[in-house]
Amino acid sequence: MNYKMILNILGWVLKIEAACMLLPLLCAVCYGETAEIYVFVLCALLCLLVGTGISLRRPKNKVMYAREGFVAVALSWVLLSIFGALPFVISKNIPNFIDAFFETVSGFTTTGASILTDVEALPKSLLMWRSFSHWLGGMGVLVFLMAILPLSGSGNVFLLKAESPGPAVSKLVPKVKSTAKLLYLIYIAFTVFQIVLMLLGGEDLFTSLTLTFGTAGTGGFGILNSGIAGYSRYTQYLITVFMIAFGVDFSLYYMLFFRNPKSFFKSDELKTYLLIIAAAIFLIFCNTRYLFDTTEETFRNVSFTVGSIITTTGYSTYDFNLWPQFSKTILVLLMFIGACAGSTGGGIKVSRIMILCKSIVKEIRLYAHPRTTLKLKMSGRTIEHETVRGVNVYMSAYVCFFVGALLIISFDNFDFTTNFTAIAATMNNIGPGLNMVGPMGNFSAFSPLSKMVMSICMLVGRLEIFPMLMLFSPYTWKK
Amino acid sequence: MNYKMILNILGWVLKIEAACMLLPLLCAVCYGETAEIYVFVLCALLCLLVGTGISLRRPKNKVMYAREGFVAVALSWVLLSIFGALPFVISKNIPNFIDAFFETVSGFTTTGASILTDVEALPKSLLMWRSFSHWLGGMGVLVFLMAILPLSGSGNVFLLKAESPGPAVSKLVPKVKSTAKLLYLIYIAFTVFQIVLMLLGGEDLFTSLTLTFGTAGTGGFGILNSGIAGYSRYTQYLITVFMIAFGVDFSLYYMLFFRNPKSFFKSDELKTYLLIIAAAIFLIFCNTRYLFDTTEETFRNVSFTVGSIITTTGYSTYDFNLWPQFSKTILVLLMFIGACAGSTGGGIKVSRIMILCKSIVKEIRLYAHPRTTLKLKMSGRTIEHETVRGVNVYMSAYVCFFVGALLIISFDNFDFTTNFTAIAATMNNIGPGLNMVGPMGNFSAFSPLSKMVMSICMLVGRLEIFPMLMLFSPYTWKK
Repeated sequence: MNYKMILNILGWVLKIEAACMLLPLLCAVCYGETAEIYVFVLCALLCLLVGTGISLRRPKNKVMYAREGFVAVALSWVLLSIFGALPFVISKNIPNFIDAFFETVSGFTTTGASILTDVEALPKSLLMWRSFSHWLGGMGVLVFLMAILPLSGSGNVFLLKAESPGPAVSKLVPKVKSTAKLLYLIYIAFTVFQIVLMLLGGEDLFTSLTLTFGTAGTGGFGILNSGIAGYSRYTQYLITVFMIAFGVDFSLYYMLFFRNPKSFFKSDELKTYLLIIAAAIFLIFCNTRYLFDTTEETFRNVSFTVGSIITTTGYSTYDFNLWPQFSKTILVLLMFIGACAGSTGGGIKVSRIMILCKSIVKEIRLYAHPRTTLKLKMSGRTIEHETVRGVNVYMSAYVCFFVGALLIISFDNFDFTTNFTAIAATMNNIGPGLNMVGPMGNFSAFSPLSKMVMSICMLVGRLEIFPMLMLFSPYTWKK
Repeated sequence: MNYKMILNILGWVLKIEAACMLLPLLCAVCYGETAEIYVFVLCALLCLLVGTGISLRRPKNKVMYAREGFVAVALSWVLLSIFGALPFVISKNIPNFIDAFFETVSGFTTTGASILTDVEALPKSLLMWRSFSHWLGGMGVLVFLMAILPLSGSGNVFLLKAESPGPAVSKLVPKVKSTAKLLYLIYIAFTVFQIVLMLLGGEDLFTSLTLTFGTAGTGGFGILNSGIAGYSRYTQYLITVFMIAFGVDFSLYYMLFFRNPKSFFKSDELKTYLLIIAAAIFLIFCNTRYLFDTTEETFRNVSFTVGSIITTTGYSTYDFNLWPQFSKTILVLLMFIGACAGSTGGGIKVSRIMILCKSIVKEIRLYAHPRTTLKLKMSGRTIEHETVRGVNVYMSAYVCFFVGALLIISFDNFDFTTNFTAIAATMNNIGPGLNMVGPMGNFSAFSPLSKMVMSICMLVGRLEIFPMLMLFSPYTWKK
């Protein structure tokens, strides 16, 4: 294990976090939040000091293998969250460290699950920090690191693999560094575009920034207790469109804008993703029409909710806990499906679901005609055997982890639906679930043990299980 | 597709069903249930007539491939259930056909889920038929057919594969026919043994027969509204032990009694199965001790419930719906785990869960040390690649089917826990779930559509998905 290399990466991650704290600091200065100015200065300095300290010695051996990559990414995210929680604790807005850690992990993993009962009581700078953590976590901090740092040497691909979601790494260009740069370029362009459109719609800069950060990272932290219900129709539709857009594979945008626009429209995953969204909107629309006054109101709320859940954003304009069971069941399914691979969204990912379904069909065809040779294909390309195997192992590990977490939080004696959807909402990085953790509820009633378990669930979900599992495996640390 | 061969098999299945109806007929005669005597004579004649009719022409070509085998098994089970439902309908004890079909499918698939609100109101002969269907379905009707019929020709192995549960077919001896005979020999011996012990414990013959049939097939239909709660401690412990015994792979009993007793104790699946049972009993015991007066009472009820759920029998001595959420969550997990492969129990099966867990560990080890070559092993033998692949596809199909069924029954607008556990209880062939379908509840409130969906779930679960899926696949019927 190349410990020096891992420490070096961790040091840089903390230095980036220190730099990122300048945004909420600026916000605190603008709004004259004196206490928070000191808090953010202190926290930024702390990150900088510790970061510089542990990355002082440059490693001579820059070789990294899968385990170094996975461990570095997993530890980075844990460290980011620990230091990111400090502003909440030190400012005494969330004095309990476990609560603050939960809230910060929820931010970085773009979950948006909250233990706060009154969001509006937070100072603006802390609201900004919460939302900004979504944006940072959405595309990935390590990806950012790779884009700006001269992290030469082999093994960067493992960092990308561990942090980018989906069944297979999709490098846009042969070089990892250029891939990282391109991803952030597209990400920033879309973010700026949404901010401008929000401002044009009459929202103030603070609202535009925070809500856009939450949309871009498919996070879901709002700044009002009523979620997104209080904003104009324009803003609601705008967020719907952008949520769905940020749930699309970014490599497709690269194709669309820089290379071959045709292949954007030929993507099977994109088609399936849009089809699922359309079907879900149609079914829930029919099922909930009677709850609303007008067709437009129904469509707006339903499309917003579907877009929010499938992309695992978790914003809400309506308490879908009150919808009929059929609609709620569809939403629970969407929670698991999640967005496209290579997007900022969470969940199992549409392409994984497609690969699993295709292998079922293949099996049936093979039983019927054993002598035929069949290959799984997606967007015209053969799916490699290794990818299928990876998806299967991912699913097994996913279910095992889900079940273990469900068992532990059931100690708190809340009902099965609350527990099941709480784990679904955290592991798929969504935010709200059903019953007690519904859109109008929150996670504050859970015990500290459950909150820790769900914090780990969020990290496990965001990093797609194996990087976190490797941290706890004895095989990783063996020579 | 060899239609003649399939028809021939279906004919024989119906003739066996006709013969099986002699037992409830005898019961009707003994208890002087005049109406039911006519009903069973009529139904038996009907089965015999139709059976003889469709199997009149002997097929010249006896070759069967996987698809013929799978289709024959799937159709056999559907036909068995349709004709098996007739006594309930004709005697007007369950006048609605869909209800009667649900109840009969629940019998043959050894589920034990009921739409009856008052079991004690049924005539004894019908109670006997209900329980006897568990026994028939437990080891499989096609396996019985193979044991007694001169079904020569290739392809019998596919019948065995489609009807016997588990990730790989375990032929005890090279010949399929001898395997089938041996399986039924062990099955009958164990059944007789339990009946004798029940009689020695002071239960009457009717009770001993019906409850033993329910135990042996891991079914779960009782003959009292109070389930098993009213019987003596001896009977309760006896049933617990036999439930767990019938959840063990029958090929291990063959080894124990006829071949190599050592390999019985070396089975990894058996060890894991017993370990899960012990762990579940321990955890639930600690969690529910406060609900009972004595330690013995706690242990008796908890071990009975754990044995009943993991073997997917579904008998109950206590309304576990009232237990704390932690215990209920453990029970839900046991529902999915199920019994051992090659037993009469349902669920995913312990060996499949083990294969999945082993492949997760393998993946972690491979990430840590990419150059090592690892093979999955169980009971000292390498697990074939094809078996692992089969388990993965099974799991994908299982989840897809589960989700689809959950969505359809959610139309009835019952709560998520009820719906989720209703599908879990039917697809894993258990019987009771939680909330409305808990041990003291039943399935009567569901709509006819949901009852049909859950009937299919029971068949899909019993036949391990693919035989039923093949019925609905266009590939099966293509030339």
